[in-house]
Order: sequence, then structure tokens, then C-alpha cells
Amino acid sequence: MLKAFSIKTSRRVEFINITGHLKKTLAESRTAAGTMTIFVPHTTAGVTINENADPDVVSDMIGHINKSVPFNDNYAHGEGNSAAHIKSTLFGPSLTIIIDQGELLLGTWQGVYFCEFDGPRMREFYVKIVEG
Amino acid sequence: MLKAFSIKTSRRVEFINITGHLKKTLAESRTAAGTMTIFVPHTTAGVTINENADPDVVSDMIGHINKSVPFNDNYAHGEGNSAAHIKSTLFGPSLTIIIDQGELLLGTWQGVYFCEFDGPRMREFYVKIVEG
Amino acid sequence: MLKAFSIKTSRRVEFINITGHLKKTLAESRTAAGTMTIFVPHTTAGVTINENADPDVVSDMIGHINKSVPFNDNYAHGEGNSAAHIKSTLFGPSLTIIIDQGELLLGTWQGVYFCEFDGPRMREFYVKIVEG
Repeated sequence: MLKAFSIKTSRRVEFINITGHLKKTLAESRTAAGTMTIFVPHTTAGVTINENADPDVVSDMIGHINKSVPFNDNYAHGEGNSAAHIKSTLFGPSLTIIIDQGELLLGTWQGVYFCEFDGPRMREFYVKIVEG
Repeated sequence: MLKAFSIKTSRRVEFINITGHLKKTLAESRTAAGTMTIFVPHTTAGVTINENADPDVVSDMIGHINKSVPFNDNYAHGEGNSAAHIKSTLFGPSLTIIIDQGELLLGTWQGVYFCEFDGPRMREFYVKIVEG
Repeated sequence: MLKAFSIKTSRRVEFINITGHLKKTLAESRTAAGTMTIFVPHTTAGVTINENADPDVVSDMIGHINKSVPFNDNYAHGEGNSAAHIKSTLFGPSLTIIIDQGELLLGTWQGVYFCEFDGPRMREFYVKIVEG
């Protein structure tokens, strides 16, 4: 089963919790066991898992990555968004989560985040379930 | 096939070689071909692959990540472990390894490490095998 | 289906676009739907996805990673290539891409790169397709 999602980001760098979309997709598929792969088809965005409770964790992550990969740093790429490309590679475009007994095997504090590094704009991500 | 492991970490930041657990799990499953996904259900830990021979490689990795993501850096998150959350995202919570002829297709020098970033404490990781 | 590739790198740090190899492997396998896992069996190399158009993006990425993980930094590892080990972990050894309607579900600007961090030398990577 494959599903595509569109998402609207509203800031230059922003992490959006997509865990609800993933759980709903799994419920619709009625898959008891297997794996779920989330894939981001962009080169200036990514996907990660981190704390779903205190929003300060996300703001600390964004603060760190913006500091360690500066927006301007004598980059050669003419579009001016090399920082977003670098962040995309450091976070990565794909994640694989385990499905067990019809549920995503996430930890209590884990949420899945779409990571915008060059917004705001319309974005997509794919969710693929493989039974097994 | 799915298996859960508990692991006890003994330092604040520590990488523990779990390759033996993965090989034993594969042998028990008698899977000839497919993929193995390792998943860490925590937001202040991760998983990586790196050299299994000289322990200085692990200590150099830990030294680098502790320097590039400082323990204290005016973080907002009240629990005081934002550095561990950031390291968790940079390393990632999941890895997929290929299974071929009943063996993990790892390189000669590759070991799989559970990465503790906010220890010491009890931790878990999951191992899922999909045939194919 | 599993396929192994050999690749010759020509610089100390170099990203080589391997997307063509992946597409050809998928075409040969005649797989309509599933996932493709790319795995690098080395501890001083990695794999990433980023822009396939302007080569300045790759040079900006290499410039950033070489600056943030210096070649020399009082590392303990005697072989002198700790920087390459650290970069390998930050980029990661594996990626999973979705297969749909017989095609890799990559975005328009996405290319898959083998990342050499301790070249030049001969390297390998594996491509595994799981139907589903």
C-alpha cells in the first residue's frame, strides 16, 4: 500500500508532526505486521523522529541546526538555499518504522516530523507499507 | 519476525556494539534472504554502523558529537537534555541491513552500535526481519 | 533481488551519482511495487540523496562537511581517518526508496549519491529489492 500526502509549510524552517497521518494510513491498510517507510521527495526537506511532547525540543533542534549550518556561508549554489540542501542530507529523506499487531512500534515520546528547511511552500511525502 | 531487546547503558554517552544480538536473531529466524530493520524507540538515543575493531574510532566519534552538539547551549527544553535529542536526530532511530544467504551483508569492519546520548539507563531496541 | 556494484573513487572526498545504476537494476528486476534498499558496506563512506542538477550543491555539501568535521582534530585513531568515520555515521550507510508502477519514486531533483570520505579507492555498494 502506497499513499501520498501534501503538506503546507508556513515558515522557512519548520518541523510538522505527521504521526497522525501515519497512524491513520496504517489503520486504513489493516496491516497486522510489516514495515512502514516514509519518504520525502525533496532535496531541501527531510524527515526525523523526536519528542512529541514539549515543543521546546523541536525549537532547540531547529536552533542548533540553523547555527551549525548557517543560511549564508559563501556557498557556490546560485539559488541561495545550500544550507537547506545540507540540512536535508544530515536529517535524511527516509525512515523505516516497524508495524506490530496493527500498530506502529513507536516509543511513548516518539513523534514523526516532516522537516522543512526552505519554506514556506507546498510539500509532499509518501508512505509505503510492506507486509511481512 | 520481531524481537525486542533490553540493554543497560552505563555512561552519559556510550556506543554499545549490538551486532552479536542481530546475528543471533537472524540465525534463530532461519531467514535466507530479505532485510533486517533495527529500530530504537527513544528520542535521546540512536543507532549507527561504524568500525568494530579499534575502540578509538568510537571514542573519536563521541568526542566529535559532544563537541559539535554541546551539553549546555542556552537550550529552552526544561529537562536539560536537548543535546541528547539533537544527537538522536542526527544519528537516526532506524537502520536497514540486507540479508543474503542467511547472513547479514555487513562489511568486514562494520559493527552496529546502539548509541546512548542521555544515560545511564535501561533502553530497548527492536529487530524486525522481512523475508523477500 | 540483490545486486552488488563496484565503484572507483578518484578523490579524498567525492560524491558519485549512482541513480542510473539503481534505475537499471530496477528495470532488470521487473518489480512493479516494493522497496529498494541501498547499503554501503564501508565505515568511511556513506550514501545520501540530494540535488541532481547543479554540481555546486554537491560542492557546497562537501565544503560544509569538511569544515564541520575537520580532517585533523587531535583524534586518537591511529589510521588518521577518524574524520571519514564520523562523516560516514552522520550520512549513514543505508537508504530505502519506494518502488511504484515499476519506477523509483524519487522527486524531480533527487539523485542518489555514493559518498566517499576516505578515497581514492575501490568501493562497493549493494542494492536489494523487496516486492510488496
